[in-house]
Amino acid sequence: MEKADILIRGCIILPMDRKEIIENGALAIKDGKIAFVGKSVAATNIEAEKEINAKGKVAMPGLINGHTHLPMTLFRGIAEDQPLNTWLRKTIWPLEAKLKAEDVYAGALLGCLEMIKSGTTCFADMYFHEDMVAKAVEKSGLRGVLAQGIIESEHKLLGAVTLRKSVNFAKKFHGYANGRVRTMLGPHATYSCSSNLLKKVKKKSAELNVGVQIHLAESKVVFKEFEKKHGLCEIEFLDKIGFLNERVLAAHCIDLSEEDMHILSKRGVNVVHVPVANMKLGEGAAKVKDLMDLGVNVCLGTDGPASNNTLDMFETMKIAALLQKHTYRDPTVLPAYEVLKMATINSAKALGLTKEIGSIEVGKKADLILVDLSKPHLKPLHNIYAGLVYAVHGNDVDTVIVDGKILMENKQVKGLDERVIMENAQKATLRLLSR
Amino acid sequence: MEKADILIRGCIILPMDRKEIIENGALAIKDGKIAFVGKSVAATNIEAEKEINAKGKVAMPGLINGHTHLPMTLFRGIAEDQPLNTWLRKTIWPLEAKLKAEDVYAGALLGCLEMIKSGTTCFADMYFHEDMVAKAVEKSGLRGVLAQGIIESEHKLLGAVTLRKSVNFAKKFHGYANGRVRTMLGPHATYSCSSNLLKKVKKKSAELNVGVQIHLAESKVVFKEFEKKHGLCEIEFLDKIGFLNERVLAAHCIDLSEEDMHILSKRGVNVVHVPVANMKLGEGAAKVKDLMDLGVNVCLGTDGPASNNTLDMFETMKIAALLQKHTYRDPTVLPAYEVLKMATINSAKALGLTKEIGSIEVGKKADLILVDLSKPHLKPLHNIYAGLVYAVHGNDVDTVIVDGKILMENKQVKGLDERVIMENAQKATLRLLSR
Repeated sequence: MEKADILIRGCIILPMDRKEIIENGALAIKDGKIAFVGKSVAATNIEAEKEINAKGKVAMPGLINGHTHLPMTLFRGIAEDQPLNTWLRKTIWPLEAKLKAEDVYAGALLGCLEMIKSGTTCFADMYFHEDMVAKAVEKSGLRGVLAQGIIESEHKLLGAVTLRKSVNFAKKFHGYANGRVRTMLGPHATYSCSSNLLKKVKKKSAELNVGVQIHLAESKVVFKEFEKKHGLCEIEFLDKIGFLNERVLAAHCIDLSEEDMHILSKRGVNVVHVPVANMKLGEGAAKVKDLMDLGVNVCLGTDGPASNNTLDMFETMKIAALLQKHTYRDPTVLPAYEVLKMATINSAKALGLTKEIGSIEVGKKADLILVDLSKPHLKPLHNIYAGLVYAVHGNDVDTVIVDGKILMENKQVKGLDERVIMENAQKATLRLLSR
Repeated sequence: MEKADILIRGCIILPMDRKEIIENGALAIKDGKIAFVGKSVAATNIEAEKEINAKGKVAMPGLINGHTHLPMTLFRGIAEDQPLNTWLRKTIWPLEAKLKAEDVYAGALLGCLEMIKSGTTCFADMYFHEDMVAKAVEKSGLRGVLAQGIIESEHKLLGAVTLRKSVNFAKKFHGYANGRVRTMLGPHATYSCSSNLLKKVKKKSAELNVGVQIHLAESKVVFKEFEKKHGLCEIEFLDKIGFLNERVLAAHCIDLSEEDMHILSKRGVNVVHVPVANMKLGEGAAKVKDLMDLGVNVCLGTDGPASNNTLDMFETMKIAALLQKHTYRDPTVLPAYEVLKMATINSAKALGLTKEIGSIEVGKKADLILVDLSKPHLKPLHNIYAGLVYAVHGNDVDTVIVDGKILMENKQVKGLDERVIMENAQKATLRLLSR
């Protein structure tokens, strides 16, 4: 190998493409990609511009958040302990109607900062003014798969306008920020988009060869109302109109029937499990084990910070494991390694980025994190997988690299002014509340 | 007031004895007690040895962990994703049989360090070699309510010996470490102690005027087996032998019948809800709302780090709230402020320390923490209670004061060598595993 850009030595490496641990490992990064993964002793002849001694740390793929609405950082904690419908109609939707592009940028950048500090390197996002989220991705150095929201709510014109915007966004921003931005289309949900609109979304998705993000079976009440109205449940309905395929990223998927799960499996739909928001809103739990047993690719998401209230994927991993064991009343369900896969390699697949991210393999993009294990709550470390899922939290992340660029090192975020970002988000919120 | 020892200014204060927030508050500490609580402007004439500018921070009572087994830090992650019975019989009990006093000390001190760093100032603990836990409490500066475990397992002699040890411990260590150690008796569980033994425990508890820590309704399987064997469920059985009263601290209390909950209410039993371990072991959930509606005092605990895997009470607060909303499928259940009460004032009551700790009130012991709010994941802060329960984690704790003594300031732990404590725990584990 020619001279590397970055050489990391002395760490434990979890490649996550296979259940193997490399003790005293080294990895080299060249031109934004992983150029070497192996034992430190095999890397003695590698020279690099920058060397990182990572003794006492674990290197793993950066976490990939499969479902969020980043600008909702602005609403963190604004309406608490309320039912989904009240929460949406009384607080969230009225505020969203007043949101301006500059607010979305301020909220999204705050979210990017929070994600960097807690070890997330890529995320799927759906919102309005999504171009502002793309700009926050560009500024922050993160990777994002972004969708401009499509919503109809029985107003055909609104549906047409938001579809056009979503398509334009998908065209314009696919490959933005040196390729760190990819795009999808973002139909909000089955109950807020008509079958005609959803069919158009499907057609456009095929034409543009981009994925589709959608909320699916998020709420018991809505699910039942939908079934009553259409004579079919949400999943059957989408299947009937030919909407479901391997390009679909479906968030939530709570309490599905066996039949529904078979449909998702047959169509190759990717499911994003969102345990924290589902529990917080009292909506129930996805049956992740059953879905996985049927071969469905299930990944993990935090949802927006207004219903979580953080973007900490380490926390989400722990709660996902706990919730599945609780749901099946079986502690052997969803063991730690499987949870780590959900937040890395499964999420990469769900976002259509299997070949590029989700594991530490030569040739993949250098999106990875170092987690500092030298902390009291991580000692002793009998089991690295259990440590990462059940004991690590976002704050234990020490170093974050995306596309071969160091975004945080020794807990110091580079190229972003934390204080200014926090202040700007605060100001945006005050402006919004005074409108 | 004479000159104070410590004056803290400029913070938000959550007193927790009432639902009130003091903005730009100040509090003064004198001789280990809280001497002033109010607005900063009302404290301008207070002089102090030591002043802390706490702008951007919130001052609240230190968290109180109602149920743990501190030395089990040594087993953190050692047996994962297994059923309770396998976990206990194949790994935990065989290892515990080989534990020596020095190991218990090393594990307990590691646990104390972890608790200080995550904002816990007092804890209830039940284990063997509990004198070593008392010594770790003395060394660390924390406060603890400790019980030497009593176990019979159908060996009468074992029951008699462990009862005697528990009584001796309770006598000898009550008031140890300048009063920071209080003691209880520690009968392990209904299924591991006979009715005769439990009656003796009750008598001794009354004689010594100390509380009793017990595991109650922790496991579905055990619960059913017990009922089959005795014709009464665990709670009815304990009530029949006159065991239940307001001195009892009962951990777990999963899936109780209405009848059982009425008994606990009538007898004034204190319940410790242990959400993380219960979920992780797939055992179910306590019905906290129903218990509270019946007037039962319910507090929060982490359980030992072998089944959690941390001692982070902030994490436990969030998961407690989520689990109750999930259990009742109702997001209005257990709002954030109630959860904060569980981890502070309710825990203080459960541990028999209502008059001394659990709130920031003049005359109470100065056991309090400062939480740093100037972090991306805590911005903006629309709701302080929601922020503390749903977004703060242990690592956001900045300063910890117990008995008026600063144990951590600006995240620097005082008087303990973190590296040495972590190394000693690691060594103890290796010794144990090689025995």
